[in-house]
Amino acid sequence: MIKAAIVGGSGYTGSELARILCRHPDISLEAITSRQNCGMKVCNVLPSLNGFVDLCFDSNLKENGDYDLVFCATPHGASMEIIPSLMERGIKVVDLSGDYRLGDPQLYEKWYGRAHVDLRGLHDAVYGLPELFREEIRKASLIANPGCYPTCSSLSLAPLLSAGLIDNYVIIDAKSGTSGAGQELSKLTHHPACGSSITPYKVGNHRHIPEIKMVLSRVYGNEVKTVFTPHLLPIVRGMFTTSYAQLKDNVTEDDVKSAYDKMYGGSKFVRVTNMPSIPSTVGSNVCETGFVIAPENTVVAMGALDNLVKGAAGQAIQNANLMFGLNESTGLDFPGLGV
Amino acid sequence: MIKAAIVGGSGYTGSELARILCRHPDISLEAITSRQNCGMKVCNVLPSLNGFVDLCFDSNLKENGDYDLVFCATPHGASMEIIPSLMERGIKVVDLSGDYRLGDPQLYEKWYGRAHVDLRGLHDAVYGLPELFREEIRKASLIANPGCYPTCSSLSLAPLLSAGLIDNYVIIDAKSGTSGAGQELSKLTHHPACGSSITPYKVGNHRHIPEIKMVLSRVYGNEVKTVFTPHLLPIVRGMFTTSYAQLKDNVTEDDVKSAYDKMYGGSKFVRVTNMPSIPSTVGSNVCETGFVIAPENTVVAMGALDNLVKGAAGQAIQNANLMFGLNESTGLDFPGLGV
Amino acid sequence: MIKAAIVGGSGYTGSELARILCRHPDISLEAITSRQNCGMKVCNVLPSLNGFVDLCFDSNLKENGDYDLVFCATPHGASMEIIPSLMERGIKVVDLSGDYRLGDPQLYEKWYGRAHVDLRGLHDAVYGLPELFREEIRKASLIANPGCYPTCSSLSLAPLLSAGLIDNYVIIDAKSGTSGAGQELSKLTHHPACGSSITPYKVGNHRHIPEIKMVLSRVYGNEVKTVFTPHLLPIVRGMFTTSYAQLKDNVTEDDVKSAYDKMYGGSKFVRVTNMPSIPSTVGSNVCETGFVIAPENTVVAMGALDNLVKGAAGQAIQNANLMFGLNESTGLDFPGLGV
Amino acid sequence: MIKAAIVGGSGYTGSELARILCRHPDISLEAITSRQNCGMKVCNVLPSLNGFVDLCFDSNLKENGDYDLVFCATPHGASMEIIPSLMERGIKVVDLSGDYRLGDPQLYEKWYGRAHVDLRGLHDAVYGLPELFREEIRKASLIANPGCYPTCSSLSLAPLLSAGLIDNYVIIDAKSGTSGAGQELSKLTHHPACGSSITPYKVGNHRHIPEIKMVLSRVYGNEVKTVFTPHLLPIVRGMFTTSYAQLKDNVTEDDVKSAYDKMYGGSKFVRVTNMPSIPSTVGSNVCETGFVIAPENTVVAMGALDNLVKGAAGQAIQNANLMFGLNESTGLDFPGLGV
Repeated sequence: MIKAAIVGGSGYTGSELARILCRHPDISLEAITSRQNCGMKVCNVLPSLNGFVDLCFDSNLKENGDYDLVFCATPHGASMEIIPSLMERGIKVVDLSGDYRLGDPQLYEKWYGRAHVDLRGLHDAVYGLPELFREEIRKASLIANPGCYPTCSSLSLAPLLSAGLIDNYVIIDAKSGTSGAGQELSKLTHHPACGSSITPYKVGNHRHIPEIKMVLSRVYGNEVKTVFTPHLLPIVRGMFTTSYAQLKDNVTEDDVKSAYDKMYGGSKFVRVTNMPSIPSTVGSNVCETGFVIAPENTVVAMGALDNLVKGAAGQAIQNANLMFGLNESTGLDFPGLGV
Repeated sequence: MIKAAIVGGSGYTGSELARILCRHPDISLEAITSRQNCGMKVCNVLPSLNGFVDLCFDSNLKENGDYDLVFCATPHGASMEIIPSLMERGIKVVDLSGDYRLGDPQLYEKWYGRAHVDLRGLHDAVYGLPELFREEIRKASLIANPGCYPTCSSLSLAPLLSAGLIDNYVIIDAKSGTSGAGQELSKLTHHPACGSSITPYKVGNHRHIPEIKMVLSRVYGNEVKTVFTPHLLPIVRGMFTTSYAQLKDNVTEDDVKSAYDKMYGGSKFVRVTNMPSIPSTVGSNVCETGFVIAPENTVVAMGALDNLVKGAAGQAIQNANLMFGLNESTGLDFPGLGV
Repeated sequence: MIKAAIVGGSGYTGSELARILCRHPDISLEAITSRQNCGMKVCNVLPSLNGFVDLCFDSNLKENGDYDLVFCATPHGASMEIIPSLMERGIKVVDLSGDYRLGDPQLYEKWYGRAHVDLRGLHDAVYGLPELFREEIRKASLIANPGCYPTCSSLSLAPLLSAGLIDNYVIIDAKSGTSGAGQELSKLTHHPACGSSITPYKVGNHRHIPEIKMVLSRVYGNEVKTVFTPHLLPIVRGMFTTSYAQLKDNVTEDDVKSAYDKMYGGSKFVRVTNMPSIPSTVGSNVCETGFVIAPENTVVAMGALDNLVKGAAGQAIQNANLMFGLNESTGLDFPGLGV
Repeated sequence: MIKAAIVGGSGYTGSELARILCRHPDISLEAITSRQNCGMKVCNVLPSLNGFVDLCFDSNLKENGDYDLVFCATPHGASMEIIPSLMERGIKVVDLSGDYRLGDPQLYEKWYGRAHVDLRGLHDAVYGLPELFREEIRKASLIANPGCYPTCSSLSLAPLLSAGLIDNYVIIDAKSGTSGAGQELSKLTHHPACGSSITPYKVGNHRHIPEIKMVLSRVYGNEVKTVFTPHLLPIVRGMFTTSYAQLKDNVTEDDVKSAYDKMYGGSKFVRVTNMPSIPSTVGSNVCETGFVIAPENTVVAMGALDNLVKGAAGQAIQNANLMFGLNESTGLDFPGLGV
C-alpha cells in the first residue's frame, strides 16, 4: 500500500483528491492538511466524504511522517517552498500548482511575478500529461500536474500537431465551469455577476498561455504560436475548449481522423468522438475530443473534460499510478455521470 | 419636476433605482452617492446606464442640496443615521433598508441587534406596500420600503387573510434569485457553492419573519402565526413564494377566487393568474399571484416578482409617486421580459 | 454472479442503472433493451459508458434469457404488462415505474387513469424504501422502487412521525432538477422556459401525493394528511425537499435530534446533518436530512439527494442487494461529488 | 401614427416585438397573428403583456387591413410566401427570417435547401444592420433583419475590417442563450441536456456563416474568409461572440481603438467598452463591443447583446424607425437590466 498525503486538502482540488483516493485500492490516504480547518474532522468540512475519510485536518505535514507520495494542492508560490524538503526525504510528489510547469525560471518569473526558489526541482520536474509524456512520467519523482486549460486544449490539438497536419498558429477559445476558479471569493465568481452570463477574463494574459504554448511546441517539435482566451461559464463543473487552426495543403478529413485515432486508440482516458460533451465526462477522468473540418480549410478541434478530475485531481492520481508502476487507471476506472 | 437623490447608488438596489428613474417623466435624478465609487462617472461603473445617467458618484449628499426626495439604498443601521436630518430639511424619504419597517423599537433591537436611534422616524414611517396601505402612503413623509420576501408573500396571502378565509397560521416557502443577496461577496453566493443547488439559509431566524408577521397580522386584524423559510435559487433575478394555509370550513374555490379578484381587480401591479411565473415579471414592477386548492383543505398561494423591481426599487418609486400625488404607475408602465 | 437485465435502458433512469451496475462486483449486466435504439451499441448512445458496457440495445428481453434479476425502467403502464411473465419465470424484479407502488388497485386507477392489470403483483410487491422497510425487502421478489419525491420527503419526515413528535398534517415543498422529468421533450423542460425560473407544476394533483401519504401513514401508524407541491429547479441533477409540521406539545429539540439519530444512526445512505445540501449527494446514493425548529412550534425537515441515484437507480440497486442477500451498499459505496 | 402588424406573434421574437411596440410612441400595434393561438387574447398567452396589448391573435393578416408596416416573425420559407403581396399593397416590411438576407438566390438555395420564390423581393431587400448600412435602410421598403449571430459578430469585427487593420481571415467563436433557438422543443434545448453544459452545434454548417461572410466582405470591400462556431449557453437571454484575426503589420493598439471609436462614436446602440458583458445589454437594444490585443499579433474582438432585442426585435424596430424617417431610437431608449 502506497502511503499518501494531501497538502491543502480543503480547497476544491484537495477535496477532489480525497474523494478519489478514498476508494483507490493501492494508495492509502494517511494525512490531509488545511491551515484553515486544522483540527476539524475532514468529513465535517466535506460532508460527502463521511464514511470514506476518517481523518482530521492537520495544519502541516508531520516532519517525520511516513509518506511515499504527497499531493500538493497548494497555491503557486507555496508549493515550491515545501517541495524541496519532501524531495530530500525521498517522497514522490505530484504538485497541482503552477510552480513546476514552466521549465524555464525566467518564464516562471515573468508570468508568476516572483523568482523561483527551487531551481533544481524546476529542472527535474516532469510535466504530467500522461497521454503525451507517459514514459517520462513513469521515471519521475516530481510531477508538475498540468492546468485544466492546458490539459483540455493540448489533448485536443496534439494529434494535429504531432502528425504535422496544421500550421503552427492555433487559437483556443476556452470555457470553464466556476469551480476552476477555486474556493476563494471573487467578483468574477459572485453568482449575481456570473450566473446569467459568460465572462471572458485575463484575455491575452492568462498564466496558462505559456504553459499551453510549451506543451504544443514540444509536441510539434517547433514553436507553436498560441492564442488563448478563457471564459467563465455559468456551470460549476466542466470545461470545453474550441480550438482553430489552418490545415496544411492537401490534408484530408481521413488524415485528421487517423491522427486522432492513432494518438488515442489505446487510451483509457481520452475518448475520440464526433461531438465532445461536458456531461459525458463529469465525475470521470475522461477527456473527450473530436474535430470538424469547417469552411476555409480550418479544423475546429474540440475538447471536454471535468476540470476537477482530468483537469486536476484525477490526472494527478493517474500520474501517481504511473510513477509507482501501477496500472494507469487504478482507482480511476469509473464512468462519467452522463447527465 | 421632482428633484431626487439616491444614497448608496452603486449596489444592486441603488443602480436599479437609477435604471428606472432615468426614464421617469416627473422625477429628475440629481445626485447619486457611493463612497466606494466616489468621483467616478456613474456610467463607467454601471455601463448599462450610459446615455441615460450623466452624473458622477458623490461621497455624500450635499448639505444644502435642493432635493425633494431621497431614496436611501443604504444598509440597515446606516439609514437611521442619515434620515433624521433629511426629515428636518423637509425632504421626503423612501428608505429601502430594514430600519423603519418594524414599528416597534424593541422588535427592531431584537432582530437587528442594535438600538434604534431615530424613534420619532420609526413612529412616523409608513410601511410602503401600496396595494395594502395606499392611503397612508399618500400622506407619508417617510416610507419604509418593504423587503422583497415580505412583498411577495404578503401580496399572495393578503386576500385570504383579509377575507377571513384561512386560519391564522401560514407557512411560506420562499425562493430568491441571488441578486437579492446584494453585491457583497459571500460563501452563500459563491457560484461553485450555489450554482447547481438550492440553498436554504437563516431557516427560522431571517429578519423578514417579524416583518411578514407584522404585515399579515395587520391585514388579518389579529396575530398571524408565520413560518418562513428562504432559499437561494441558482438564478440572478426573480423571486417565488409558495405559501400554505388551512382553509376555514365551507370556504369554496369561488370564495378564494373572489377574494383575489376583489383585492387586486383594479391593481396596476398585482396580476392574478392561475400560475405565477418569474419570467413574466422580470424587469417589471409586477407581482403575479394565484392559488390552488390542494388536498387536505389546504390553499397553496403563490407569488412571483422581480426582487429588484417590485421587490425593491420599483416599489420604492411606486411609493414616491403616491407620496407626491402622481399617478401610481408613472415611470413604471413597462412590461416584464416574458422570456 | 447475479445476472441482470435492464428494460428501458436508454432513458435517464435506465442509463443511470447501467452506469452503476457496470461497476457492481456481484451483479453482471447481461442485457439492456431500448426500442428506440435497438441494435445500437450502448456506448454509442451513452458515450460515458464507453469501456464499461460492451452490449448492444435489444428491442425486448429474450424469451429464454437467463436472468436472475430485471430492472424495469419502463414507463408506468408498460411495467405491469411485462412483469407478470418475469415473475412466472422466477426472476426477481425491481420496477422503477409507479405501477406497483400504491398497493390499492382503486387508488392506482384514480391516480394513473387506468385499471391495474396485475393484481397479484400489486398485492405481492414490496415498497422499496430500505431505510424504512428493510426486512420486507429482503424477502421480496418484486420491488416497487419509490419515486424520487417520496424518497426524499419520506426519509426526512419519517423520524418525526415514527417517534410521534408531530401532528398528522405535513406540508412538503419539493424542488427537483430537470432530469427527474425524463428524456421526453416537454414545454416544462424547454430551457428558455425553465432555465431562469422555478416552476411549480401539478400543484395539488401530482401522482406522488398518494404515494407519500401511503408511506408516511404507514410509518405513523395512522393517516397523515399530506400536502405536496413539486417545483422544477433550473439545475439538472438533485432534489431538495422542505417539509413543515407542527410539533406536539413539550417536544424539545433534543427529542427531535434523538429521533433522527435513532432512525439513521447505523444507516449507510442517510446522513443526518444540520444543513442538507444537494452537491454533497450528487453522484452518490446518499440522502442528507436534517431539521430546524422554527418559530410557531414548527419543525422544518429538510432532505437532499440525487434524484437519479438515491431517487431512482441507486436505490433500485440497494433494493436488489437486499433481495439477493448482499451487503446493502455493494456497488454503491462511492461518495458524492461534493462540488 | 404608423399602423403596424406582427405576423407570427406568439414565438419569442414575435412577442418581443409586441413587448417593445406596445410602448412605441409613433407606431401603433394593430394586429398580431398566430395560427396556433388564433382567437386567444394576446395577454392570456403572453401574460407579461397584460395591460399593454389589448388584441386577440388573428390566424392571418386581414386581406384589406390598413397597415403601414408589417413585421414578419415567421420561419424562413413562410416569409417569402407572404411578403410579395404585402409589398404590392405598398406596405413596408421588416422580415426577421433568413429569407431575404442572402442577396443571391443560389446561395439561398444552397443554405436553405429550397428555391427562393420571390426573386424581386430578394433583389430589392436591404440588409438591416443600421450601424453599417443606415442610409440604404432609410430608403428601403423591405428589410432583411439580420440574424443574431451576424449582428453580434459583424458589429464587433466591422471597425477592424473597415479600417483595413486585419487580414481577411476571421474566426468567430459564438455563444448564445437558448431563447435564440426559439419556442420549438428540441433535444438541443432540453434542459437536462443543455442546462449544465455548453453545446456546440452545426459546427461548420450553420446558416449564419454565409450571412456573416457577406456582411464582413461588404465592409472590407473584398472577400473575408469566415470561420464561425455557434455554441448554446445554459442561459436564456444573451449572446457573446469572441472573434480572432491577425493584425496587419505595424498596426498599434491606438489604431484599433480609433477604428472602434470612429465607427461607433455617435452610435446610440453600439457601446465600445474594454469588456463587453451580457448583463449590461439584456433587455436593451445595445450591443457592447471591445477588443484586446493578445499575443501573436492577434486581436480578440468581443461582442455582447440581447439576442431577442438587438439580435432580433429591437433591431427590427430600429430599422422600421429609419424606414419611416423617425429618430432611430424612438421607442428603444431604455437601458439594459445591468444585473
